[in-house]
Amino acid sequence: MVGGGPGDPGLITVAGAAAVRWADVVVTDRLAPLALLDDLRPGVLVVDVSKVPGGGPTTGQDEINRLLVDHARAGRRVVRLKGGDPFVFGRGAEEWQACAEQGIAVRVIPGVTSAVAVPALAGIPVTHRDANQGFTVVSGHVPPGDPRCRLDYAALARSGTALVVLMGVGTLAAIGRALVDAGMDPSTPAVTVADGGLPAQRSVHGTASTIAGLTAAAGIRPPAITVIGAVAGFRPTA
Amino acid sequence: MVGGGPGDPGLITVAGAAAVRWADVVVTDRLAPLALLDDLRPGVLVVDVSKVPGGGPTTGQDEINRLLVDHARAGRRVVRLKGGDPFVFGRGAEEWQACAEQGIAVRVIPGVTSAVAVPALAGIPVTHRDANQGFTVVSGHVPPGDPRCRLDYAALARSGTALVVLMGVGTLAAIGRALVDAGMDPSTPAVTVADGGLPAQRSVHGTASTIAGLTAAAGIRPPAITVIGAVAGFRPTA
Repeated sequence: MVGGGPGDPGLITVAGAAAVRWADVVVTDRLAPLALLDDLRPGVLVVDVSKVPGGGPTTGQDEINRLLVDHARAGRRVVRLKGGDPFVFGRGAEEWQACAEQGIAVRVIPGVTSAVAVPALAGIPVTHRDANQGFTVVSGHVPPGDPRCRLDYAALARSGTALVVLMGVGTLAAIGRALVDAGMDPSTPAVTVADGGLPAQRSVHGTASTIAGLTAAAGIRPPAITVIGAVAGFRPTA
Repeated sequence: MVGGGPGDPGLITVAGAAAVRWADVVVTDRLAPLALLDDLRPGVLVVDVSKVPGGGPTTGQDEINRLLVDHARAGRRVVRLKGGDPFVFGRGAEEWQACAEQGIAVRVIPGVTSAVAVPALAGIPVTHRDANQGFTVVSGHVPPGDPRCRLDYAALARSGTALVVLMGVGTLAAIGRALVDAGMDPSTPAVTVADGGLPAQRSVHGTASTIAGLTAAAGIRPPAITVIGAVAGFRPTA
């Protein structure tokens, strides 16, 4: 189980790159550093589980689990290559569990998480001694108020941590509103970074109250990461 | 500015390892993957800024900043090698700023943050679809209630995120108490991992209310990381 980092093939770990070269089978998805797959040994099987052929629906999690188990049981060296770190919203834990339940040993090689690295590559540190003593990383795939949402955004607004929102392009307006309604200063700096670490990387700067509108106006689509907190106003050349 | 990862030399990035090989000067500290320094070119200057010679006090931040600036101004290729990621409590932002103010270009190569990787190496995913939609990373170097503490632990207890505490070995009792006093279930799983990713790695499992005592009883000393939340009870072999 290998974390591939945010996309630039230089940001996989040394051990992760070695595992990819060692593999008989690489099970990958859209956000993994796909450039690494150009250098595989002849005959290595690459399975992209992010989409079924033709751009159809996402491969189901049960199917991914079964694929990993079946290849491993057949005696193949299987690398599950994921974007970022496997345990930051990567469902890595579920795949690990599925393998463990079948008696298949899993070695974990952590990766550079996009939650920290993408802001950094755009000039934003997730912590700064003058600004905060912590940061919170959330999945924004369901908005505050949705019955599936198990985050308390009002508590997060008061926590004293910078907020890093992944998978939140579509819910950013609701998140910004929930934070400001809970007492966050609407002028708190915020930044959205799209395509972090890739040549297409770009950033939009705003505030807790304006970032959703500015992100939408800039036409930013996933994948993108938004940071809300004083650190989002950091300018190393100031 | 290179993140070295949690300590295992295989957990630096490919780009980070290349930067270390390219350096004329490596400014490092105690938690960086020091094994990498065995393979430097002859004549490379290594400066350990974690301690002055003889185990005395930590090198001051101003002195570190000055060192980076002076070597860069002298035309040397300077690598600032840090444990974990430079911007997760690494004061990387301050060093970056100090360089930028002197017109020195800084390239950031993010690292594998110990906050995510150390739990993973001990079998604990910081997120799990069944458990949470986020995690919070805090520095526990000052306890809740201390006037220097700018975190609201009562809010964190309600946030719905798993809590990852760095630099909290000495303050864990106060942190656990603050969380439980704010309504966190005292039986919430918790785990402390010491020397993560190194041969000496070991873990102590408990709950929000017992982890501080168990960590102390096990004689664990820094560096250690504590995770408090349902994910701390994850067992991939269950």
